[in-house]
Amino acid sequence: MSGCPYFEKRHLLFKNKPPKAEEDEDASQAGVNKASKGGIIYGDYLQLDKIVSAQVLQSEVKGNKIHDEHLFIVTHQAYELWFKQILFELDSVRHIFISGHVRDERNMLKVNTRIHRIVMIFRLLVDQFAVLETMTALDFFDFREYLSPASGFQSLQFRLLENKIGVPDNLRVPYNRRHYRDNFKGSDSEMLLATEQEPTLLKLVEEWLERTPGLEVDGFNFWERLQINIFDGLNQEKERIEKMPDSEEKEEMTAELVKQREIFTSLFDEKRHDHLMSKGERRLSYKALQGALMIYFYREEPRFQVPFQLLTSLMDIDTLMTKWRYNHVCMVHRMIGSKAGTGGSSGYHYLRSTVSDRYKVFVDLFNLATFLVPRSWMPKLNPNVDTFLYMAECCDSSYCSSEDSD
Amino acid sequence: MSGCPYFEKRHLLFKNKPPKAEEDEDASQAGVNKASKGGIIYGDYLQLDKIVSAQVLQSEVKGNKIHDEHLFIVTHQAYELWFKQILFELDSVRHIFISGHVRDERNMLKVNTRIHRIVMIFRLLVDQFAVLETMTALDFFDFREYLSPASGFQSLQFRLLENKIGVPDNLRVPYNRRHYRDNFKGSDSEMLLATEQEPTLLKLVEEWLERTPGLEVDGFNFWERLQINIFDGLNQEKERIEKMPDSEEKEEMTAELVKQREIFTSLFDEKRHDHLMSKGERRLSYKALQGALMIYFYREEPRFQVPFQLLTSLMDIDTLMTKWRYNHVCMVHRMIGSKAGTGGSSGYHYLRSTVSDRYKVFVDLFNLATFLVPRSWMPKLNPNVDTFLYMAECCDSSYCSSEDSD
Amino acid sequence: MSGCPYFEKRHLLFKNKPPKAEEDEDASQAGVNKASKGGIIYGDYLQLDKIVSAQVLQSEVKGNKIHDEHLFIVTHQAYELWFKQILFELDSVRHIFISGHVRDERNMLKVNTRIHRIVMIFRLLVDQFAVLETMTALDFFDFREYLSPASGFQSLQFRLLENKIGVPDNLRVPYNRRHYRDNFKGSDSEMLLATEQEPTLLKLVEEWLERTPGLEVDGFNFWERLQINIFDGLNQEKERIEKMPDSEEKEEMTAELVKQREIFTSLFDEKRHDHLMSKGERRLSYKALQGALMIYFYREEPRFQVPFQLLTSLMDIDTLMTKWRYNHVCMVHRMIGSKAGTGGSSGYHYLRSTVSDRYKVFVDLFNLATFLVPRSWMPKLNPNVDTFLYMAECCDSSYCSSEDSD
Amino acid sequence: MSGCPYFEKRHLLFKNKPPKAEEDEDASQAGVNKASKGGIIYGDYLQLDKIVSAQVLQSEVKGNKIHDEHLFIVTHQAYELWFKQILFELDSVRHIFISGHVRDERNMLKVNTRIHRIVMIFRLLVDQFAVLETMTALDFFDFREYLSPASGFQSLQFRLLENKIGVPDNLRVPYNRRHYRDNFKGSDSEMLLATEQEPTLLKLVEEWLERTPGLEVDGFNFWERLQINIFDGLNQEKERIEKMPDSEEKEEMTAELVKQREIFTSLFDEKRHDHLMSKGERRLSYKALQGALMIYFYREEPRFQVPFQLLTSLMDIDTLMTKWRYNHVCMVHRMIGSKAGTGGSSGYHYLRSTVSDRYKVFVDLFNLATFLVPRSWMPKLNPNVDTFLYMAECCDSSYCSSEDSD
Repeated sequence: MSGCPYFEKRHLLFKNKPPKAEEDEDASQAGVNKASKGGIIYGDYLQLDKIVSAQVLQSEVKGNKIHDEHLFIVTHQAYELWFKQILFELDSVRHIFISGHVRDERNMLKVNTRIHRIVMIFRLLVDQFAVLETMTALDFFDFREYLSPASGFQSLQFRLLENKIGVPDNLRVPYNRRHYRDNFKGSDSEMLLATEQEPTLLKLVEEWLERTPGLEVDGFNFWERLQINIFDGLNQEKERIEKMPDSEEKEEMTAELVKQREIFTSLFDEKRHDHLMSKGERRLSYKALQGALMIYFYREEPRFQVPFQLLTSLMDIDTLMTKWRYNHVCMVHRMIGSKAGTGGSSGYHYLRSTVSDRYKVFVDLFNLATFLVPRSWMPKLNPNVDTFLYMAECCDSSYCSSEDSD
Repeated sequence: MSGCPYFEKRHLLFKNKPPKAEEDEDASQAGVNKASKGGIIYGDYLQLDKIVSAQVLQSEVKGNKIHDEHLFIVTHQAYELWFKQILFELDSVRHIFISGHVRDERNMLKVNTRIHRIVMIFRLLVDQFAVLETMTALDFFDFREYLSPASGFQSLQFRLLENKIGVPDNLRVPYNRRHYRDNFKGSDSEMLLATEQEPTLLKLVEEWLERTPGLEVDGFNFWERLQINIFDGLNQEKERIEKMPDSEEKEEMTAELVKQREIFTSLFDEKRHDHLMSKGERRLSYKALQGALMIYFYREEPRFQVPFQLLTSLMDIDTLMTKWRYNHVCMVHRMIGSKAGTGGSSGYHYLRSTVSDRYKVFVDLFNLATFLVPRSWMPKLNPNVDTFLYMAECCDSSYCSSEDSD
Repeated sequence: MSGCPYFEKRHLLFKNKPPKAEEDEDASQAGVNKASKGGIIYGDYLQLDKIVSAQVLQSEVKGNKIHDEHLFIVTHQAYELWFKQILFELDSVRHIFISGHVRDERNMLKVNTRIHRIVMIFRLLVDQFAVLETMTALDFFDFREYLSPASGFQSLQFRLLENKIGVPDNLRVPYNRRHYRDNFKGSDSEMLLATEQEPTLLKLVEEWLERTPGLEVDGFNFWERLQINIFDGLNQEKERIEKMPDSEEKEEMTAELVKQREIFTSLFDEKRHDHLMSKGERRLSYKALQGALMIYFYREEPRFQVPFQLLTSLMDIDTLMTKWRYNHVCMVHRMIGSKAGTGGSSGYHYLRSTVSDRYKVFVDLFNLATFLVPRSWMPKLNPNVDTFLYMAECCDSSYCSSEDSD
Repeated sequence: MSGCPYFEKRHLLFKNKPPKAEEDEDASQAGVNKASKGGIIYGDYLQLDKIVSAQVLQSEVKGNKIHDEHLFIVTHQAYELWFKQILFELDSVRHIFISGHVRDERNMLKVNTRIHRIVMIFRLLVDQFAVLETMTALDFFDFREYLSPASGFQSLQFRLLENKIGVPDNLRVPYNRRHYRDNFKGSDSEMLLATEQEPTLLKLVEEWLERTPGLEVDGFNFWERLQINIFDGLNQEKERIEKMPDSEEKEEMTAELVKQREIFTSLFDEKRHDHLMSKGERRLSYKALQGALMIYFYREEPRFQVPFQLLTSLMDIDTLMTKWRYNHVCMVHRMIGSKAGTGGSSGYHYLRSTVSDRYKVFVDLFNLATFLVPRSWMPKLNPNVDTFLYMAECCDSSYCSSEDSD
């Protein structure tokens, strides 16, 4: 970056000494020596020779250079760069969960920060379409034939990203009746298969939600107490309404009450939950759903403030991915039209179909909004007893060791 | 991009045949054959092997991997990718001017579109700071020592960009008393020197403005007519004010009138203009300034609508570059503090000093706002005579040849 | 705005004298006198007493003040303020078209600028959701009952805006089987009905496109020449392919050719066009479609540069309105869930259904991307003959009179 | 909002019963009755009659309607609407601090959420300039005279906002040698004076930071332990360097060490701190600074995660306000030029001078970046002893009572 003093000649003395043995000391010395004799320079550090030499226009190769192809390439490369960063953050968060480091609450800051960073990157990626939209359909037409048969369906990183977050194979919309993995071969295909089998972010969050303190049946027993309160509340409403004189309003309220009772009956019906899961309409286990609702209701408890932020950020990611898909659709419509009337499946219509709740991984977190209740119906906390303590299972280790979770 | 049907198997038949001879036909055939046997695929097209393998963390190399360094690298690489694109657009626009293709007005759409694209990219780059700002000063501290002595001052592309737009060498703020080019060596340094000597965008726009139709002394003679009208207007104002009864308001208006007369006297004083130019307070020639003001005043004439948009976009670029600089300063303040009290020049303070009108290349276009006059003072057009015709000097050539300006 | 020197005590002498008679002079004098004795101050100018006193929380009225309702109100008021601005721009543009002022090409700058301003406002409105999204479903739940039965379906300005742009009544998705106008009564309902009958922006643009110079059958005769060129081109392709040795590629190309011929046959089939129009799949007349395609193809001609920008901005508006709708859907999903399983039509699902091409007014401009052809197939211009002249029907009048179009 | 189902006829039964007596029950019934008979409708709820009727163009009043004045008015009204919202959030946060509710950690979620909301609003306000920038200097010139002497300096809400956050009177840049409060009279002036005397957000955060657990001299005693560690660290560095053979590098490192020692000596020098405070270069008390640094260093401790986010958001506000000021400056430059050469103080130059660290309220939080140290220098926590417990002073009360802090 221009004159960025980040890179300024820095406190050579402040070594973050790697927590290793003597010889490392020497290694870092070597580093210092090298630095003072030149060390690494900006362009080498960023490997700019690779980055800024990677724009080869197919139209030029084929003898008919079209100016706008350069923008097309750079935009896609920028997308892929940021996908790499998202995957990096995603993997580090998944590692914190998988390794169990998440049980040390100190690591929640990291989890939250990195998930939030993914949110910020997606926000940029959504905006980034505005740049590519400076290219018109006519500019694009001039070179699009040269790209054949390269296809965005072949973006390995985007598919990895979907898999690692938790887009399930069986909910994907097929394109031209082909499985998405058929666009890849060899090691790429294997990588994709592997990510389908590894724990997804969804799965890891589910396990974490299932451990939400307060769910213990022999403890606070949130779920049972909530069920009792809700049906008590509904019954009181019923009595209140029945005492009202007959009126249109009374009828409306009665009908509404019936609807509400149905909704809440369904909430406490584990079998129905499992049925919805089997259809892909719910994604979180019954227990995890309970944890999420508990965090929603007690979000102001110190213990739940950061978890609540995490759930919010996960919805942000879902929303932004879906906005990204939608912006993509809009641009495609502009670039190639809908090809109405041509017969044959259209890329435009395929893409539109992916802007759907099927692709919302954390759809349950959104749908919990259906199950909100007045604060007075929430099971009361007894502040002397019901303290949801922090867990710090690794707390025998020194502070810095929590760093290892990277 | 995910499932981007841009890349869909395309109308193999629609060849934009390069305007070349028979053998090219064969070459393009070859292309087709290759395509149907596999052709180019997404990852190869974008050279993703280079792009997504170029993230080497110095902290990891030195045995103490710090997570956030990855974001730092990717963000800077994304900046450099977009700088490459800006340079590409900038060079193409400069080529259109230098080659004289700009005299064929058909090329103005291209000039405008590409300058506007630069605007849109800078808008993205300004927003992009939000991503890097998810890294705190403390995260940065953990790895910044490893970067030494790499420095953003070493961003070749940013310096090229400044030079090609027209940041003049003698107005640059020195950093640690060193010339900016001292941060570069060998071919990089030579490239920079070359761009200092090539025609800048500022220079090319200046020449174009000097040719604004309507400036001809033996024609519409805009400048003289404007001068007459303005001083007539001021004189009428003076008379009007003098007739008013004495009052505080009259005094104010008289004082204001004196000030206005001074401003406009200065506008028509070529020597003063040259003096301001020598100090760097003005950058456009006297004649070019006249052209710009003329375009401002008659912007609704069909002939001037697109030129007016161009002037607006040039101001956008200046504004956005300066916002970019300012956002950069803000982030640096966050990351390393102002180091108040340490003595020694601080990167923060250096960067602040570059957020200055010295670095605004098209500062004259902004300052023309000082010289606006009521519409009634503008020299009248006689629509039967004063038609500012389009120029299409190359119009003997076929339509497509205007494409050559790329 | 803080210390905004816009409002600085200004050149009292520079009166934009209204182009009226003597007595106006006096009126403006009065203005000056008033100004110097105090004149208008910021808060009065902006009527801030109204603006910042208009936030009455229903939750507070009903005895249970909920903090976040304030944000809810302010956000919606900000939306309505901007809707007012959009309507203002839209009406002025429609007026320029309706009054025929658009035939004076000098007014195209105004049209373009104002349409572009609408684009910029919609861009802001899309981003504005990020502010309301700082409210969670739980915060919203605390006060949403107090709002009943107020409904966003009752936003008069938004419906006016849709009507004036050109969302046709018969393509609207009904909500709960009710006509959209049933949400309004009295003068509001009449206003809506009136806008359904007035010329929409779509209609006005259509008429303007039909007048595109070059369409004249006894002149350049674009459409016939294009048809000839396209079918010549397709025939040559056919011959070329037939000469190829048999191969999978040849088969593919043949199939593709058949498809292309179908597409272009449909393009030149006026009956089919009328059929598609009757179904709402096309919205522009056959002639207007020709004009749009002509502007696309010859966009670099000075005469067509600004019209081309206009078409691009119209697509921008469509795209942004649809993004606005989609962002709205996303937020609603967050706030109230999808209510899957409750039976009864859901607001979420209704809103989703409006994010559809049915609501894209200028859908034809997008779909023209289907009918692009190689530049070499475009009818050639003879620069000595085929100059598409500017029209300035009002050009006998003085320059300033073009201002009247406001 | 269009078809916003937020407002959908809602669960009439879910009353958030105000925590009052029987008669309230009846009141809410009344509400229900009213609702079912019509209740409040959208336009009335938002008081749109006030909002969308408040656009009176001065140019029209004075007989020369200028189209773009409408945009000017609406933009400023939108700014003022959002300023109202910011003030509302700011006051609620200040109330939580002043009332002592902040000592119940459950309220930190609220504080954080609302401060974050202010951040999001400012982000929108920064972007909002893009809309006003669709007006050119020439459009503005046509009506700016009519605004005199209205001035953005007269924005009461912006000044209140500055005061409540903590811009101190004595650091304000005077404009035309007048005190900022002279632009206001009567009750407005008194309101401003009052806010200068009330506790600012800065002051309240300072007091909260001073209570940071771990600062107790008879407890963890962070400050003393940090001082010891740092100087031990510096001494070890010194020894290490002295053992190195003479070299340029050794000299550099020695010089750097001297500089570092100076920096840290200054950190632990309370008198110097007080001196810097008296000059306005520091704003937080010595104790508060210690608290902030402690939160920085131990930000991963569960107890400090949310406080750390708060400090980050406070810096965000500062940064965004300063970006807002800078964007404002940029626009003013465009609209009225810099008026170089006119003599008399220029609004442009005044505004530029406010884009300064003098106006950064939380400047100390930025500058703490100067005092970072390697993690190994940080005083170690003993996890068995040094647990920074949550405070919930009001925890005897029921959960819901924490709601009262509104």
